[in-house]
Amino acid sequence: MTETTKQLKPDKQQSSNEIRMPGPVVAICGGVGGAKLALGLYRILEPDALSIIINTGDDFEHLGLHISPDIDTVTYTLADLNNKETGWGRRDETWTFMKSLEALDAETWFMLGDGDLAIHVERSRRLAGGESLSAITASFARNLGISANLLPMTNDKFSTVVKTKQGVLSFQDYFVRQQAKPCVERIDFDGIDSASPSDEVLAAVSQPNLSAIIICPSNPFLSIDPILSVPGIKQAIRASSAPVVCISPLIGGHAVKGPTAKIMTELSFPTTASAIENHYSELIDGLIIDLVDRDESVDISRPNLVTKTLMNSTEDREELARAALKFAKSL
Amino acid sequence: MTETTKQLKPDKQQSSNEIRMPGPVVAICGGVGGAKLALGLYRILEPDALSIIINTGDDFEHLGLHISPDIDTVTYTLADLNNKETGWGRRDETWTFMKSLEALDAETWFMLGDGDLAIHVERSRRLAGGESLSAITASFARNLGISANLLPMTNDKFSTVVKTKQGVLSFQDYFVRQQAKPCVERIDFDGIDSASPSDEVLAAVSQPNLSAIIICPSNPFLSIDPILSVPGIKQAIRASSAPVVCISPLIGGHAVKGPTAKIMTELSFPTTASAIENHYSELIDGLIIDLVDRDESVDISRPNLVTKTLMNSTEDREELARAALKFAKSL
Repeated sequence: MTETTKQLKPDKQQSSNEIRMPGPVVAICGGVGGAKLALGLYRILEPDALSIIINTGDDFEHLGLHISPDIDTVTYTLADLNNKETGWGRRDETWTFMKSLEALDAETWFMLGDGDLAIHVERSRRLAGGESLSAITASFARNLGISANLLPMTNDKFSTVVKTKQGVLSFQDYFVRQQAKPCVERIDFDGIDSASPSDEVLAAVSQPNLSAIIICPSNPFLSIDPILSVPGIKQAIRASSAPVVCISPLIGGHAVKGPTAKIMTELSFPTTASAIENHYSELIDGLIIDLVDRDESVDISRPNLVTKTLMNSTEDREELARAALKFAKSL
Repeated sequence: MTETTKQLKPDKQQSSNEIRMPGPVVAICGGVGGAKLALGLYRILEPDALSIIINTGDDFEHLGLHISPDIDTVTYTLADLNNKETGWGRRDETWTFMKSLEALDAETWFMLGDGDLAIHVERSRRLAGGESLSAITASFARNLGISANLLPMTNDKFSTVVKTKQGVLSFQDYFVRQQAKPCVERIDFDGIDSASPSDEVLAAVSQPNLSAIIICPSNPFLSIDPILSVPGIKQAIRASSAPVVCISPLIGGHAVKGPTAKIMTELSFPTTASAIENHYSELIDGLIIDLVDRDESVDISRPNLVTKTLMNSTEDREELARAALKFAKSL
């Protein structure tokens, strides 16, 4: 099944902004790219209809603070607090903390804005007090006016570790400090054996009336695989009767942002839509690829939708979200 | 021995800014008021000649961070980073963290500036890593270009607790959250039995060539008593041959800032210079009182100096420091 954007573009004169799905929707999401589509879904679905399962493999301890980069990106994006210029962090941010930290000769390779710090400090305090990451994330979302359910994939320790030609690097060391430059040989997940999904994650995926599971266009290896690797999550997705739709993070063989294509090449994966399909072959019912890649449609064995996947504007996000949900409905 | 300011005022044409003492100097110091004189001493003494023993009874854990208000006030003051308008915190400060914290519905009664946060976060990280407060304080001072020795009174847990008519309050609860309004009945020091002075404190006080020990015009009950209560510090001061000079924190029966006079009244201490003398009677060799209180000089049994003790300008700080050192020399 192939459609073009044109066919899917809603008639704005007729359609309201909201889309009515028969049941709730689950999105599976990493950082920046995924959060864009999550925002689109959030904006067009009814309040409370959306649950977003978020990667915590990037979480790390820095300066004694527990930092959850992907949770924060999704939180800031849905609360309209995200920095649209940088793609990470908060808007209207100040940097006095970093300047002051530098004067103390402390570690400054990971940029922490002054406003951003609040979420790390308060999260760390509450984690130390025994609250779960799930409860804290939900509470922050509520306080920031977000009606979607933001669900860390696990409350257990789970760390993405990157084996590179320069040695084994923790995720942030690889991604931020070394700017994803080292050549990746393998990606491991520390803690994978003892981690389990939070109750909220299992409950979201197991909703009997779930109408779609959307795999956002996040990095498959660094953002989505950690989520799918938490024992029990893949099984729960398979057990759900809801259609699973993946939006390819590649456009013309490149990622919009970040090292997805570079890592695929390093791991000897072709940077094609069908490689993405194969990667998720156990799970997905349909794949969405970009207009640029329309010729690749023939190589995809599952139902697929060809549409504009580049999300520059809020309208782009809403349109892709609407297209993904319609496509899911059709499966 | 009584002199007036006039007699002590140095001839700026003749005297250099520095004062040559036969040996090093120790200052005993709390927060804002004490830090003013500590700065004066720092500016007129040779580099490395000054050791400042600082109250840590106000230290507390807040938002999971270890906060040392008096150490920070002295550090910022000597590094010329202090906020001259507020009397606390840093200058050129921003407040994005607090705004962001408020949106998370977190505790905001204790104001933490964005730049200020760096010292709390980095200190907390290093304490958690096993470093001593002494080592961390010295390292921060070095990084900020301070050549004086900043010495926390102890590396052990020691908390000033205020028994009030409204119940027992931790120091910051009493002082900041309740703005020192509750009527004080008693001041206790939690941890007093198991605390000991740091090696650096004992070494500073025991220097054989020490030329003066200056008790700064800090709150005697809340800032100086905690220091003198650490088992071993009072004994070390008594064992030193250096003259001990106290600058009364009262001017005309009032403190320049803060609740000293209010607390003295609540504890049934007269708000007079001789009450200050009595309070320190076991320790001091001489007392400095303000010109306003010159008539009280007759009630003081020890040698005393009447001079201007109000420190509005940097010159005031230097002049009082010079007067105190000259006075000590004369004892």
